Order: sequence, then C-alpha cells, then structure tokens
Amino acid sequence: MKVTTAIEHFTNPLYLESGRILEPYDLKYETYGELNEDKSNVIVVCHALTGSHHAAGLYEGDLKPGWWDGMIGDGKAIDTTQYFVICVNVIGSCFGSTGPMSPKYPSTNPYRLKFPVITISDMVKAQRILFDRLGIHKAHAVIGGSMGGMQALCFSVEHPNFAKKHIILASTYATQPWAIAFNKVAREAVIKDPAFQNGQYDPKEIKEKGFAGLSTGRMCGYISYLSPHSMERKFGRDYVETDGLYALFGKFQVERYLDYNGINFVNWFDPLSFLYITKAINIFDATRNYDSLEDSLSRIRSEIVLIAFKSDLLFLPKEMKTIEETIKKIGKEDLVSYKLIDSDYGHDAFLVELDKFSHYIREALQERK
Amino acid sequence: MKVTTAIEHFTNPLYLESGRILEPYDLKYETYGELNEDKSNVIVVCHALTGSHHAAGLYEGDLKPGWWDGMIGDGKAIDTTQYFVICVNVIGSCFGSTGPMSPKYPSTNPYRLKFPVITISDMVKAQRILFDRLGIHKAHAVIGGSMGGMQALCFSVEHPNFAKKHIILASTYATQPWAIAFNKVAREAVIKDPAFQNGQYDPKEIKEKGFAGLSTGRMCGYISYLSPHSMERKFGRDYVETDGLYALFGKFQVERYLDYNGINFVNWFDPLSFLYITKAINIFDATRNYDSLEDSLSRIRSEIVLIAFKSDLLFLPKEMKTIEETIKKIGKEDLVSYKLIDSDYGHDAFLVELDKFSHYIREALQERK
Repeated sequence: MKVTTAIEHFTNPLYLESGRILEPYDLKYETYGELNEDKSNVIVVCHALTGSHHAAGLYEGDLKPGWWDGMIGDGKAIDTTQYFVICVNVIGSCFGSTGPMSPKYPSTNPYRLKFPVITISDMVKAQRILFDRLGIHKAHAVIGGSMGGMQALCFSVEHPNFAKKHIILASTYATQPWAIAFNKVAREAVIKDPAFQNGQYDPKEIKEKGFAGLSTGRMCGYISYLSPHSMERKFGRDYVETDGLYALFGKFQVERYLDYNGINFVNWFDPLSFLYITKAINIFDATRNYDSLEDSLSRIRSEIVLIAFKSDLLFLPKEMKTIEETIKKIGKEDLVSYKLIDSDYGHDAFLVELDKFSHYIREALQERK
Repeated sequence: MKVTTAIEHFTNPLYLESGRILEPYDLKYETYGELNEDKSNVIVVCHALTGSHHAAGLYEGDLKPGWWDGMIGDGKAIDTTQYFVICVNVIGSCFGSTGPMSPKYPSTNPYRLKFPVITISDMVKAQRILFDRLGIHKAHAVIGGSMGGMQALCFSVEHPNFAKKHIILASTYATQPWAIAFNKVAREAVIKDPAFQNGQYDPKEIKEKGFAGLSTGRMCGYISYLSPHSMERKFGRDYVETDGLYALFGKFQVERYLDYNGINFVNWFDPLSFLYITKAINIFDATRNYDSLEDSLSRIRSEIVLIAFKSDLLFLPKEMKTIEETIKKIGKEDLVSYKLIDSDYGHDAFLVELDKFSHYIREALQERK
C-alpha cells in the first residue's frame, strides 16, 4: 500500500460558519493507494475527536498503526488496491492542520483562545477546498464514525453532488444532551485546572509536569466510549494494587486503565484543540441552517449507509434510526440503509469490532447494479 | 407525623472492617411516627451517597423536604401512622455523624485523611449499635436505594435476624467497573484540584471561593444518575445563552443544569466525605468475606424485595437479577421477589418516579398471610 503524508498551505481566507475568517491555514492529510486516471476511486475517511489524518499504515518506529488500520489497506474492506483513500486532519486539531496553537498570522504567537469557534461544516468546507486543489472534485464515498460520521452527514447535505455514497457510523444528526454532558464535565476539568492558565499554558511544561484536568477530562470521555458491559468484561472488579484487606486500599483495574490513558493523553493531544473540537461536537446540528431535519436531509442526492451499534450510549442507535426514517419520510427510501450491529462494546465498537461490520462497508462501496 | 431529630454519642470503640477503630463517634438520626408498645413497627430507611438522616418532613425555613418525603409520611407508602421510621446519617458522612471532618479525639483537629476507610458493613454495624441503645433489637423492614440498597443487603446478610424484610432498590451485590469509573473521575477531579490541599482545605474558604474539582466531580455523578433518555426529555438541545449564531457561543440547558448543581454542591457537602463514601461504594462487595455470592446470600433468613429500574445505568437491572437468581439457586425462592420498573429516568428513578413503585413498597411491608 502506497502511503503519502503531506501538508497544504492556503492563503485565501476560509470563511467560517461563525462569520469569522481563518487566514492563512494549513491542512495535513494522508493518502493510501493510488488515484486512478479518471479520478473515480476516491474515498474520503473522516476522523473522530482525537483522531488524525493517520488512519492506516505504520510509521517507522511506531508501535501502533493508524486508527482504522484494520479497515484500510490492500485487500481490506476499504481496499487500497482499488481505492485512493484520503484522510485529512480537521481544522482545530493538533496534528498538523491549523488549530488554536498555530501561529496567528502575521504574528508567530499562537491563537490560543483567539482561535475562532469551528463547526463540523467548517471542517468539511476546508476539506473540499483541499480536494479541489488536489484536482479531486468528486468522491466515490465519504466514510466516518462518531465526529467523522457528523462530517460524512454534513458532506451529504451541504455538498450533495460531491460523493456518491456516504457511510456514517456511530454518529448522530444532532448531538444530544447525554453527549453534551460528558463533554461538559471534560471541558470543566480542563478549564478549571490552574495548569490551563486561561489558555496561556506552555505546551512543553504540561507534558513535563502533567495536566490533571486534561487527564480527568479524558477519563470522563473514556466512560462514554465504553459501556457497562464492555467494562465488566474488560475489567470486572479485578484490582492491581492491594494493601492488606482485599480491595480496601487497592486500585481497581478499571482505575488503572483510566489513569494510564488519562495521564498519557497529555503527551499527544492539545488542551485547546480538545476544547475547540468538543465544542464543534456539542453544537453539531444538521438542522441548524434548515427549517427541519426533513428540510436538511432533502438536499441529499447520494446513497446513505447508516451503521449503528447496539450498546453505543454516546450516540444512540435511535438517533441513527431517525436519520433513516427521515430520509424515508421524504420519499428517498431508495437512498438509505440502516444496520444495527450487535455489539456490547459501546461507542468504541466502530474502532474495535471491525469484524462485525467491515463486510457491510465492503459491500456498500461496490457499485449498485 | 411526629418528626424527631437527635444525635447519640458513643464512647465504646467501633471496630471497623479495615482493622481500625473509631472512638468515640456520633450518630445523627431522624425518626418519623411513633414506636409501638411491642416495638414491632420499626422501619429502617438507609440513605444514598449524598443523602442524610433527613428523609422526610420539612424543616422550618427550608424549601425542600427530606429526600424521600413522597414515600414516608402519614398515609404514604411507608405509612407513619402505622410504622416508626428511622433514618441514620452514615458514618463517614457530613450531616452530624462522625466523618473525616470530625475532631480526632483527644485533639480538636479534624481527622481529614487520617480518617479510617469505611465500608458499607461499618455503616450498618454502627446503625445496629445505635438501635440497640434505643432499645430496638428487631425491625419490621430495612429499606434503601443505591448505597442505601447496599446497606439493606448488608443488613440481610450480616444481621440476618434483625429485620423481617429487606427492600433493595436500584442497587447491586458488588459495585461494577462502570460505576467505579464514574467515581474514579469524580474522585480525581476532587483530589487533583489544588483547592483540595491534600485534604487540608478550609471548609469555610471553599464555600466562599468555590472548589471547582468537587463541582466537576458532582457533575460527573449527575450523568451517571440520569440516562440519555431522561436528559433528552429534560433538556433536549435547548440553550440558555446565545450570542449571535444559534447555539454557537451559547450554553446548553444541560450545561446550566450541571453548572448549577455542581457549583451548589460545595455549599452542602464535604469533599472528604465525598471521597470516603465513594470509596465505600467502590469497594462494596457482598461476597468479600464469603466464598461466593451463594455462600454470602445463604445467610439470609428474611424476605428480600428487589426493585430495579430499566434505564438504571449505574446499577444495572441484571445486577439485581443476579441477587434474585442466586437466592433462588440456593433454594430460598420463597424469600425473594424481583420487580423491574419501566422507567427511562435512569438511576435517579428511585428518588423521582415514586408513583411507579411506591405501591410495591406498601404491599411488601404488609405481613404475609
């Protein structure tokens, strides 16, 4: 599989939904496989909150491959012998695309809290501009899970002639209060930690000294990504440290898991990007610029494949079902399909239990007869 | 309804499960109704994490009655014209019974982190000692929800001859990792806040200046007490503050709700009590001193009434079902009953949706024919 990582610099302004402008800006992206002659084999993969453009392949010296490596590759469900796959780091993130810690031109100082509020629409608009520069004006499919699914839905509504198929996993048409509440706790933990310094933290210093609020916020996120059942299976009441009476002074496995992932998060993700992207998720609402969900989804011209997960508590299957039912209601039943995957893994199933649904993605990508 | 609030002081040591001793100690409690002549009408009500002995009635000047006022009173399901109801503030709490901010005798300085680890068994043992002093050696029933249900189960196993009936709501036989994880995040938020000062905080100062970590911790708890459905119904995507573009800079209703309850929590609950009681919940395991759950529950001699709630995510109905099935398995099917209440309110249903199950409690309290 041919993997290319690149960055593009844009000097034209990016007009944001908030009315503000981002200018200039960078977009980092990765591609897998090769673009065919008529450019008809493009698949856009959209990443989630803490994901990046590095969706597949293994970087030299790394232990872990890209976040959807089981899905993307030669002979895999998103087959790179057939398709040219592209994944773009969203604006607002911290892996190379412009985000709150990028220099605020013409200064070399970072935006920090002066970075504009970003929406899912903005993320998608920036990707379209990048694709245009790359000479890609059409895609075979756009695919994403969680926040990536929001982007895929947004592509289908706001750029209805761009892709033939949109595959949306473990996502929603508008973020509901349960998910907003988890983000609220995580955001509070970050903002109220004195280490945040009202956004003026030193990125090196927090990596050295830790940033408890960001770690706690991440732990809170982890709860929402799993399910009571997956935690039971994964951890039970096992404990790692005990000191005298059974479990009385010990640390449970689940606590160690949260500690490890929470503390580690500071090493690879930026607190301000975390705040801006969770904000984008909270305010995501496919009906915002339309009269209703019917009105919004009536713009769709492409095939919509919805894949929901039974134990997903962050974005409930019924939210995905609402998308299906609404598309059917407006007379486009031919365009939509909905699959409910039997998994007790929680929201993270779309990253973990690939065996349970990758064949649906493989099939969905095939041309209809 | 006659309401009496009182405190008892004990100078004998309380031997704790950890091997440590609490000496001396106080227990604050409240009673409703009147004890009959043969003392056969006692109902013990056990409170949850942040509850208190004030289970019913309205204090002068208060706007809110006790936490289960809809359940306890003249003519109510727990009928105070018939029963003498007693509710004790658990040790470790902060409403009058001895807890981490109580003076560590002979000093007048508080225990703080020198307070011993408390278990559910310890809470129950202390209550039995209080009842003995009050001349109450038997009860008609012990009732509790959530941590109160853990106490009720503990009464039935460890004090099998004390009460005739145990009514356990929205609880478990051993705290599972999902609940431990929520407590973990909340505890991290408290401990890592510099305002905690490693337990040396000034209680007045935190009330004046706020204690963000405790507020964030409480918010996290609130998520676990509700459900995706109850939040949707309660808040939807309504927003309270908007500034220009719809919801882009606003605060959602669910965020305001969490803010309000989180910030307010500091005014009425103590951070160290929060840590000690969440610890007691995390380490609760009815099998700890037994070979198995069968072995533990085989000690039961009383009627066990289990009331679970469909959307309870903190203590899943299947955990309650396990108690029922285990009791049946060991040949005591006559003793146990299980009701699953159809509610989408989440864990808090046992405090909120009384109409849906109070008749079961009224019936369960009646003598069997």
